[in-house]
Amino acid sequence: MTLQQRELVHQILRDAPFDLGGDVEAQRPLLEQMLTSQPMPDDVRVTRGELGGVPVVFVDIDGVDARGTLFHAHGGGFAVGSARGSVGLASAIARKTGLRAVSVDYRLAPEHPYPSALQDVTAAYRALVAQSGGADRVIVSGESAGGNLAIELLIAARDAGLPLPPASVLFSPMTDLTVAGASFAAKADADPNITATAIRRRAHDYLDGTGTSADDPRVSPIFADLQGLPPLLVQAGSHEVLLDDATRLAVKAAADDVAVILDVTPGVPHVFQAFAGLLDEGESALERAARYITDRLAASAVRPPADALVGAATGQPS
Amino acid sequence: MTLQQRELVHQILRDAPFDLGGDVEAQRPLLEQMLTSQPMPDDVRVTRGELGGVPVVFVDIDGVDARGTLFHAHGGGFAVGSARGSVGLASAIARKTGLRAVSVDYRLAPEHPYPSALQDVTAAYRALVAQSGGADRVIVSGESAGGNLAIELLIAARDAGLPLPPASVLFSPMTDLTVAGASFAAKADADPNITATAIRRRAHDYLDGTGTSADDPRVSPIFADLQGLPPLLVQAGSHEVLLDDATRLAVKAAADDVAVILDVTPGVPHVFQAFAGLLDEGESALERAARYITDRLAASAVRPPADALVGAATGQPS
Repeated sequence: MTLQQRELVHQILRDAPFDLGGDVEAQRPLLEQMLTSQPMPDDVRVTRGELGGVPVVFVDIDGVDARGTLFHAHGGGFAVGSARGSVGLASAIARKTGLRAVSVDYRLAPEHPYPSALQDVTAAYRALVAQSGGADRVIVSGESAGGNLAIELLIAARDAGLPLPPASVLFSPMTDLTVAGASFAAKADADPNITATAIRRRAHDYLDGTGTSADDPRVSPIFADLQGLPPLLVQAGSHEVLLDDATRLAVKAAADDVAVILDVTPGVPHVFQAFAGLLDEGESALERAARYITDRLAASAVRPPADALVGAATGQPS
Repeated sequence: MTLQQRELVHQILRDAPFDLGGDVEAQRPLLEQMLTSQPMPDDVRVTRGELGGVPVVFVDIDGVDARGTLFHAHGGGFAVGSARGSVGLASAIARKTGLRAVSVDYRLAPEHPYPSALQDVTAAYRALVAQSGGADRVIVSGESAGGNLAIELLIAARDAGLPLPPASVLFSPMTDLTVAGASFAAKADADPNITATAIRRRAHDYLDGTGTSADDPRVSPIFADLQGLPPLLVQAGSHEVLLDDATRLAVKAAADDVAVILDVTPGVPHVFQAFAGLLDEGESALERAARYITDRLAASAVRPPADALVGAATGQPS
């Protein structure tokens, strides 16, 4: 159906000067330029600010009285990318869901290896939850390495007893820093812009000198205990070497009794939703993600808060 | 949220006299009684008939001008169960989608081992497609062993050049007759009514004397080439030993560039959708399945038929 659209996106990615596995100093401005080259719609308002001392970008759609917040972690292999670069994707979801988006400018590797990024995301989330009086109106999302941070944030929040959001949405999450997915080989010819070598370099940047191994559950969530996590939507394209990172996360979540939907679109690349304007499949996937978010927020709204349930069960005032 | 509901369903299944691994002569009436013990709503009309010489049950909702057909294969390990026993689930989907349902009384093992059931399902599908003038308004569904038959039907239809439906919906499909899923051990304590031993006995009934091995892609679709199959929705519960049959089918479909959604509900058993009347999670899952079907039918309706595209591309009249 959209073969021409897919070929165009494939060509754009093949021809782009950006190389995820390249030198970070050279690659950061290239990715920034690529992600911000398209003008934003006039009604998208981007504001710099901070949450918990961490720089963030707030994204509002003019005229939308936001009913909650999309808390987003951008992609870029922990080493490149920025909150500003993720505004295209974050604003598209904000528009479709009636949410405000906030995207976190977490510190980047190799200058700031693990756990700097996760600390930043967690601090910003903690501040957002405090400001919001809970997490009932918060959706956690992330793309690529940001999907890794989003899941690790949920695990850290669970373990710290922080309120958990009613759902999380992960776009092509990077979940295994041992780079063991069979799709690295199986999809190498189909993926226009990512390689196992690139992922290994970025994983090295994130972990080198930290004493944390690539199979540590705090950096590779497929090795983590996911029990107690909120419902997850995991989207991926079948033409990406990171496909198995997505599928294995979903399979682990299912095994750990987490409500999970894995949604794979054939023939499209890594974080294809960022090309929603060019690609029908991207637009459709964002529509499904928005519907998922809307459904989960509605379910959260009709459910009494956990504290009230505990209070009722113990006979204590809630 | 629905812990009490889940415990009730768990208890019903634990206490039920039906044993999937038992002697078929004794088990067939027990399952039939269990599945037909609840009265149907007054507006559900069940009619016996045939398609392609194969006995089927037609399920219509009074007052619904059906806009297509749900073609359903019932469960029961290839050896028990019946089209009549599947009317509860099939009619619930028919009601939510505005479709007519047809459920196939395929021949059962061990009296009729492979490929009898698949031949029957394929013959009935071929007749339905011929009567319907195509498959654009047909959705193929199946539960448990019927999910196996549904996928194998799609593969057979693809290979025979038959029209393919715009989507297929699989409830807890049994996809690996080698019984190799890790969930057979991991979920043994959580699953109230199915065991690896039971599945092995039914797989033996289906295959014994046929010369077909359990890892043959014609009986275990996780070993099949799934390329070219229509979009799939795979639903499963996290409290079933067959969980990995569902997840591995979805993962294989994704690897083979099939549009696939895997939708896992935590804490619920095999084909929990059959308990939609008792279990909120069952009702929610059916709602998602119905929305998926409705979306796929709508997408199919706006898409020109494949023949027209071929005609246009080659300049020949379509």
